[in-house]
Amino acid sequence: MAKRVAIVGAGVSGLASIKCCLEEGLEPTCFERSDDLGGLWRFTEHVEEGRASLYKSVVSNSCKEMSCYSDFPFPEDYPNYVPNSQFLEYLKMYANHFNLLKHIQFKTKVCSVTKCSDFTVSGQWEVVTMHEEKQESAIFDAVMVCTGFLTNPYLPLDSFPGINAFKGQYFHSRQYKHPDIFKDKRVLVIGMGNSGTDIAVEASHLAEKVFLSTTGGGWVISRIFDSGYPWDMVFMTRFQNMLRNSLPTPIVTWLMVRKINNWLNHANYGLIPEERTQLKEFVLNDELPGRIITGKVFIRPSIKESVVKVEDGQASLYKYIFPAHLQKPTLAIIGLIKPLGSMIPTGETQARWAVRVLKGVNKLPPPSVMIEEINARRENKPSWFGLCYCKALQSDYITYIDELLTYINAKPKLFSMLLTDPHLALTVFFGPCSPYQFRLTGPGKWEGARNAIMTQWDRTFKVTKGSENREKDENSMNKACKRIGGSMSYLESFPKDCTCLRLFIPPEHSL
Amino acid sequence: MAKRVAIVGAGVSGLASIKCCLEEGLEPTCFERSDDLGGLWRFTEHVEEGRASLYKSVVSNSCKEMSCYSDFPFPEDYPNYVPNSQFLEYLKMYANHFNLLKHIQFKTKVCSVTKCSDFTVSGQWEVVTMHEEKQESAIFDAVMVCTGFLTNPYLPLDSFPGINAFKGQYFHSRQYKHPDIFKDKRVLVIGMGNSGTDIAVEASHLAEKVFLSTTGGGWVISRIFDSGYPWDMVFMTRFQNMLRNSLPTPIVTWLMVRKINNWLNHANYGLIPEERTQLKEFVLNDELPGRIITGKVFIRPSIKESVVKVEDGQASLYKYIFPAHLQKPTLAIIGLIKPLGSMIPTGETQARWAVRVLKGVNKLPPPSVMIEEINARRENKPSWFGLCYCKALQSDYITYIDELLTYINAKPKLFSMLLTDPHLALTVFFGPCSPYQFRLTGPGKWEGARNAIMTQWDRTFKVTKGSENREKDENSMNKACKRIGGSMSYLESFPKDCTCLRLFIPPEHSL
Repeated sequence: MAKRVAIVGAGVSGLASIKCCLEEGLEPTCFERSDDLGGLWRFTEHVEEGRASLYKSVVSNSCKEMSCYSDFPFPEDYPNYVPNSQFLEYLKMYANHFNLLKHIQFKTKVCSVTKCSDFTVSGQWEVVTMHEEKQESAIFDAVMVCTGFLTNPYLPLDSFPGINAFKGQYFHSRQYKHPDIFKDKRVLVIGMGNSGTDIAVEASHLAEKVFLSTTGGGWVISRIFDSGYPWDMVFMTRFQNMLRNSLPTPIVTWLMVRKINNWLNHANYGLIPEERTQLKEFVLNDELPGRIITGKVFIRPSIKESVVKVEDGQASLYKYIFPAHLQKPTLAIIGLIKPLGSMIPTGETQARWAVRVLKGVNKLPPPSVMIEEINARRENKPSWFGLCYCKALQSDYITYIDELLTYINAKPKLFSMLLTDPHLALTVFFGPCSPYQFRLTGPGKWEGARNAIMTQWDRTFKVTKGSENREKDENSMNKACKRIGGSMSYLESFPKDCTCLRLFIPPEHSL
Repeated sequence: MAKRVAIVGAGVSGLASIKCCLEEGLEPTCFERSDDLGGLWRFTEHVEEGRASLYKSVVSNSCKEMSCYSDFPFPEDYPNYVPNSQFLEYLKMYANHFNLLKHIQFKTKVCSVTKCSDFTVSGQWEVVTMHEEKQESAIFDAVMVCTGFLTNPYLPLDSFPGINAFKGQYFHSRQYKHPDIFKDKRVLVIGMGNSGTDIAVEASHLAEKVFLSTTGGGWVISRIFDSGYPWDMVFMTRFQNMLRNSLPTPIVTWLMVRKINNWLNHANYGLIPEERTQLKEFVLNDELPGRIITGKVFIRPSIKESVVKVEDGQASLYKYIFPAHLQKPTLAIIGLIKPLGSMIPTGETQARWAVRVLKGVNKLPPPSVMIEEINARRENKPSWFGLCYCKALQSDYITYIDELLTYINAKPKLFSMLLTDPHLALTVFFGPCSPYQFRLTGPGKWEGARNAIMTQWDRTFKVTKGSENREKDENSMNKACKRIGGSMSYLESFPKDCTCLRLFIPPEHSL
C-alpha cells in the first residue's frame, strides 16, 4: 500500500511537495487553511489570519527563468519579474497541469500533528484537522510542513516610548495594501528590507516626504543588472559560484562590493552596511536611488536607543528540512529557508529529496551526525574562502541545491556532459543556473530540460523586445491593431474605458 | 541715459536677462503675461494659455550643480535632481536675491513689438502691452524675447483615421497633470520623449497596462550614472568633451553607444534608435527598464502609416540669438535652443553676451557673414570628428557656451590657471563643467565661483548621504527627533496627519 503523506499548506512548497509525492508513488493529502492555493502569492484586500499578506504591487525578486518549477517554465509572454497576480496564475497552471487540485482539501485547518503511540516503530502521525466547524482525525505515514515563515507581525512598540504621544497613524507592513493612504503625508518607514524599501518608494510617489530608516544599511541592487540583464541570471552561474567559492573571503567580498558600488556607490547614498564581512540578503529595488536623488526618499540612521531584538531563529533542522531528534524521519519541513536565490526551485528540490527519505529510498545519517552538523552551522564560523553569509541568509543557493541533488543522484554531470553535449555543458556551467538544470538527469528527469535551458534567453527578452523586430512583430501587432481606412491603429481594439494619451513634441524653433 | 530694454517673459531666461541688463547698467522692464514668475517651472492645476504646462511629478533632467545660475548655487539641502516645486522656489530666491522683482510687470501681455519708423537709425522698438484690459505703448532701445518654445500642443488627429470610432479618452501631454486618471485603464502613450516616457512610467503604477509607442526608438539613460553619480556631472566635463571632439565620429558614436548599452542593452528592450548616426536628445528615465522588465510598460513600434510631420524648425538666428536680417542688432531671442545640457546656464550665458551686444560694447559681424553661418548650420553636414547631433538638438553644450564666453572674454583660461592655481585648473578640466566656471573671469566675474567649484561634490552628496555619517548626523537628527523618556524618536516631531509605518522582519525559523 502506498504511504500516505499529509502536506500542510498549498503554497509554492506545498504544491511542489504534492507533485513530488505523486512522482514517487506516495499518496498525498494537502490541507490548506484558506479557500485557494498560492500561499503568500495570493493577494487579498484584507489581511487573513495565519497567511502572509502582500501589498498590491509586489513583484518577484527572482526572474522568471530562475524562479520557476524546474520542469515547468513560465509562459513566454510573462514579464521577467513577475507581478504577484501573474505569479498566482502560474501556480494555478502548475497545479492544473500536474493534476494537483484533487489532492488539496481547502478551508481545512490543521489543528494538531501528534506522534502515534507506536511512532518509534511505525513513524506515523495523527493529524487533526478542522473543516467548516467539523473536526476530523487521520493517520499518516509522513508529514510535510509547507507553511513557510511565521506570519505574525513584529511590532515592538516598547522601543518607541514616544508612541503614546504620537498623533499619526502607525502600522506593520503586513497591514499595507495600497499607497493611497500616504497621499500628502509625511511617512517614516522603519527597516530597509525588501518590503520596507518597496513601500517607501511606492509611498514617495504620493507622500509629501518619506524617510526610510535603516539600522545597519544594506546592499541595494537593481533587478536590472549589467546591460539590462536580470541580476540573478548574471549572478547565479555555476562558473561565478565556483570562482566565488575558491577565492579567499576578503577578496571575494571586495570584488562583490566593488561590483555593487559600480552601480551605486552606497557610501554616497547613506546605505553602506555597517557589517560588511557577513553578506545579508540583498535589497532588490530599481527605483530607490532615483527616489533619493530626486529628494523623494530620505535615508536616515535608525533610532539609536531603540532595542530591536532579533532572535537567532535557527531551527534544529538537518539540511533545513528534517528535525534531527525524531526517532523516525517521517516529518519534513519544506521551504523554511532563505536562500540567496529563488524559493520555488529551492522548496521543490527540498521536496524531491524529502519525499524519497519519507518513502525510505534515501536514508538520513544517525541523529548524532545530524546534530553535530547543525551545531557547526549554528556557530557560523567564517571560512577562509567564498562569501560569508549571515545567519538569517544561511546558505549558498547553488551549493545547497547541488547537495540535495547529489542525494537523489540528479546533479548535472558536467564532465561527462562536456564529452557528450559540450554546448549544453558550457551553457550549464557559464550560463544562469536556471532550475531546468535540476531535471537533466536522475529521478524526475524532464525531457524538456535541455531545450528549456537552451531557450532561456529567448524567453527572457521576448517580451521586453518590442520594436526591435519591427518586421517580425507585424503579426502580434495585427492582433492588437486593425486596419481602418488604410491606416493601422491601436485605437479600435482598446476597450471603452481606455485612456489614450496623444503626445507630440510641438514643432520647435519656428518663431 | 541708460538704454531701456523690454524683456518678454519672466521664466528662467527672462530672469537671467533682467539681471544681465542690471549688471551692464541697462534699464530692463520685464513683461510677464501670468501673475507670477517661473515660466514653465510653475506648476498649476489648470493649463494656462500661452504658458508651458507641467505635470505634477516633473523633476529636472540636469542635476542641481549643472543647472544653476552661474553665480547662484542651489541651496545645499536641495536634492540633486530638483522637483518642479523646489525649482520654482529657487527661481524666486534668485529673483529676490538680485532684486529683480521690481523690474517685472505681471499680468501684462505683450501685444506687439514693432520697429519704430526710425529703426534703421535708432534701432528702437515700439512695444504695445495689455494690463487688465488697459493697453499701453512704450518705446524701447532693445528687446529680449524670453518666451521659450512654442506652447501650442501638436495633436495630429488626421493621422488616426480610427479616432472617431474610438470610445476612450485621448489628450495631449500638455493636458496631463496627475496619474489618477489612468487607474485600472489600458493606456497608450505615443511618442517616447521625456514627457511621454515619464507619463508612461507614472501611469504604469496605476494603470492595467501601458503601451509606449516609439517611432524611431531613443537612447534612454538614467539620471543615476556610474556608481550613482549624476549623469551630467560625469558626462559634461571639458576633458571628455575634448576627447569626444577629437575622435572620429564613428569611433565616438560607438563608444557612446557602448557606454549607454552598458547600463541597458537597448536592443533587448526594443528601444534601439533606428537612426544611430545623429545623436538625438537623451530620454532621461530611471524607472523605464524596471517597468518594462516587470511587465508594466510595453514598448511598441509606432503606428506605421501615420504621418507625423515634424517641421525643420530652424530659425534664422545668428548663434541662436540674433535675427540676421535686422538692420540694427537690438532684438535678442534668449532660450530658444535645446542644448544637450541645462537650459539655465545656457540662457544665462546667451543673455550675458546679448546684453553687451544690445548695449553696443560687443559687435555682430555683417549680416552676410551671419547668414552664411546660419545656412551652413542648416545643412548640418556631418563632420569627421566628434558627435553628430540631430538638427533639433543642435549644439554641443560646452562648445557653444565657450563660444559665447569668448565673445565677452569670460572663458576660463586653463593654461594660465594651470600655473597660478593648478588644483582649480585640473578640477575645471577633468571635473563637471558646472556653470560656476563661467564666472571665474571677465565681466560678471563672481568671487564665490572658485569655492563653488571646489565644493560642488560636497553639495551633491550632502543630501543623499543619510546614515553614512552617523555621528555627524546627530545634530540634524536632533532637529527631527526629540528625546522622550531617554529614547530618541522621530515620532514626536511628526505632524498629526503623519503616517508612520512600522516594519520589522518577524523572528524567523522559530518553529
